[in-house]
Amino acid sequence: MAPISLADSLTEKLAAIVGPENVARTATDRLVYEVDAFTMAKQPPAAVVHPGSTEEVQEIVRLANREGIPFVARGAGTGLSGGALVHAGGIVISLTRMRRILDIDIRNRRATAEAGVVNLRLTQQVVGRHFHYAPDPSSQMACTLGGNVAENAGGPHTLKYGVTTNHLLGLKMVLGNGEILDIPGDTDEPAGYDLLGIIAGSEGTFGIVTEVTVRLTRLPEAAQTALVVFSSVADATRCVSDIIAAGVVPAALELMDATIIKSVEGAFHFGFPLDAGAVLMREVRVARDENERERLWMCRKKAVGTLGRIAPSHCTMDGVIPRSKLPDVLELIADVAERHNLLIANLFHAGDGSLHPLILFDERNPEEVERVQKAGGEVLKACVEVGGTITGEHGVGVEKLEYMRFVFSENDIDTMARIRDVFNPARLCNPDKVVPPAAGLLEQAEGVN
Amino acid sequence: MAPISLADSLTEKLAAIVGPENVARTATDRLVYEVDAFTMAKQPPAAVVHPGSTEEVQEIVRLANREGIPFVARGAGTGLSGGALVHAGGIVISLTRMRRILDIDIRNRRATAEAGVVNLRLTQQVVGRHFHYAPDPSSQMACTLGGNVAENAGGPHTLKYGVTTNHLLGLKMVLGNGEILDIPGDTDEPAGYDLLGIIAGSEGTFGIVTEVTVRLTRLPEAAQTALVVFSSVADATRCVSDIIAAGVVPAALELMDATIIKSVEGAFHFGFPLDAGAVLMREVRVARDENERERLWMCRKKAVGTLGRIAPSHCTMDGVIPRSKLPDVLELIADVAERHNLLIANLFHAGDGSLHPLILFDERNPEEVERVQKAGGEVLKACVEVGGTITGEHGVGVEKLEYMRFVFSENDIDTMARIRDVFNPARLCNPDKVVPPAAGLLEQAEGVN
Repeated sequence: MAPISLADSLTEKLAAIVGPENVARTATDRLVYEVDAFTMAKQPPAAVVHPGSTEEVQEIVRLANREGIPFVARGAGTGLSGGALVHAGGIVISLTRMRRILDIDIRNRRATAEAGVVNLRLTQQVVGRHFHYAPDPSSQMACTLGGNVAENAGGPHTLKYGVTTNHLLGLKMVLGNGEILDIPGDTDEPAGYDLLGIIAGSEGTFGIVTEVTVRLTRLPEAAQTALVVFSSVADATRCVSDIIAAGVVPAALELMDATIIKSVEGAFHFGFPLDAGAVLMREVRVARDENERERLWMCRKKAVGTLGRIAPSHCTMDGVIPRSKLPDVLELIADVAERHNLLIANLFHAGDGSLHPLILFDERNPEEVERVQKAGGEVLKACVEVGGTITGEHGVGVEKLEYMRFVFSENDIDTMARIRDVFNPARLCNPDKVVPPAAGLLEQAEGVN
Repeated sequence: MAPISLADSLTEKLAAIVGPENVARTATDRLVYEVDAFTMAKQPPAAVVHPGSTEEVQEIVRLANREGIPFVARGAGTGLSGGALVHAGGIVISLTRMRRILDIDIRNRRATAEAGVVNLRLTQQVVGRHFHYAPDPSSQMACTLGGNVAENAGGPHTLKYGVTTNHLLGLKMVLGNGEILDIPGDTDEPAGYDLLGIIAGSEGTFGIVTEVTVRLTRLPEAAQTALVVFSSVADATRCVSDIIAAGVVPAALELMDATIIKSVEGAFHFGFPLDAGAVLMREVRVARDENERERLWMCRKKAVGTLGRIAPSHCTMDGVIPRSKLPDVLELIADVAERHNLLIANLFHAGDGSLHPLILFDERNPEEVERVQKAGGEVLKACVEVGGTITGEHGVGVEKLEYMRFVFSENDIDTMARIRDVFNPARLCNPDKVVPPAAGLLEQAEGVN
């Protein structure tokens, strides 16, 4: 018999907690967990475990703390900044078994569900009663409520409804140190410090959310989606700035550039004008053809997937800028693309000033990958220079760790590190994400990993 | 010449920072600072200083840290939970000189202002362009933007627009340790941890906010306010629950009980029905008589002030409960009032489930004050028992410090204390507020004060 390796022994200890059928047994079983939807970095996990309850998550976190092993929670792995990427020798704690909807309370307009529930499934449960769960990331058919909290996810309708934090009323969470934090979601405003506010968007670096209580929102009586065609992206973005400055807030205001239009049209044959420089999708609430509306949104939500028709790989950037700067920054992105000889497509939540430049490339060409990284850095730097920031909704993750210094002083970064340490003092829970090791912390951080 | 006392020497040191005209010279000058709108506790300050800039605030905080003196920021002193109450031997840092509006950017729908700017003044600056600053506490004619952030203030229109945190985009702040935190407000979602989310509602225990960047909101095209008369409070609250459950969200939904109706009618002669058990004010957006609308809201916002006609003192409670529990809890409040032989009036943001029972009494009668405190505790306990919490918008302050244990476990309170210590490690900034000294922290806390 072969000797049991360290990883095997870890798997056995995890099996003792969750049952042998709920741990990945072989390297092949673990293969899909080495990457998330941010495809630029990979790391095979030492173990993958599928707990079925908050208590099992707590036991796993305690085990990891006792043995000094890093760990990371994972929902559907749809994150775009590497937030679910595991660390060398680390454990992936997959929450996909925790997918029960625990309570739906239409009268008080809230629902409680386990963190592994798929975003869209919650809406499906209440749509018959004319309610929905408003945050609607493009990945909503796959992404989970827990991942949405970690990334403070938005979506096309963020413009009207806000991001996840605006819909989060309570949660249950296993902190990095193994303690359980339980914030009941019975009322709209909890007493004391607003821990929910800082947990939403902490990208899994404080602990593992296992249950959430979220707001349910009444569906609009009717929605009409208008498509407006422009000869250039610059014209379309000036129109966005004018619409918002006029005080009009559509439910959504999405921009697709010529590259995206061609890619989507090739895939879905919706009837987009192929000679357009850009289209704006604008949703307002009046009655109209529901079927066409749904097809149009399908095009928008699946647009990124169609880019495989143009290039084998793409990298989705995620910057936010003041809306009035949209024309300038779009022009700058075109410059960057030309200078680095890259194709950059644009598809974004224009109403929020939330950019998603998609850099198209071939990941098998290392020289091109290097150009992609340079171009990405230049785009984010430009966002910061016009008063914007480096991530709107995809998170910092591993992708933008070093870019945090574009935006924050060492003091601010140090404050963030100390807040993380309140929840996650041993820094085993999703280490080296969000907060770059600050000068004063570098030594300690190296000691941990 | 009399020897200079310790307090005098402190005043001289503060005068060296802000100029001699900006410190209170005599005990009489300091008298108004010994209490805020929570009138149940008093403490004379050792010094009162009026800084004119963030840098001056920083110098004062550094001085306090060097000398180990507690300090507290104060805006207009309209807080209802004692949040601006100073500590024995402490400094009141009054921000009323810092009242410049620094930037109004209608195009990007945001404004930047110093913390001492009065809430209503910001709206007055933009109302001509059909915008407003949405959070509208009843004290909006006096209360300041900085105090609004500290308490995460709401108001009658919270139901539609949310509380202060939903409108806060950036801030500048002197932390308890004297460092400056600067979160730019150019975009809707900052990168990294959402420090704004936890600072809003931290009740001045992390540091002193000196500047804010807030969202400006388009005014509704028109608003109609309907008044609905009920024969009992129970009927009115059932109607509230039905309205919200039906998915209708009015801009505001306010309840006044019979005591309030009589008090307001005596003061303003609006024409409220004196035999009603309760009235609901409900605001929707259609055109109608603007003059009557304004008079009606004046009655609502100034209602508490009219209670002086009934009793010399009152204590405003502040609990939040699930809306569906309104009828039960209102009945319980009536029971508590009868049992303790007290008159309790009700006036509240019914749509949010945010209760404001007003206990009427005479503060010169110590036996009655004791009954008020008992009754208040029973009401808050009842709120927690039905799944609610102990404060909706007035804060924990000193008033509800011990009630925090009704809601949170020792673990949760300990987490809050450790977060406070990140910003305010020496605990000199507004000590002994919000977070009750937890078992493990008691010794340290005693050492500090």
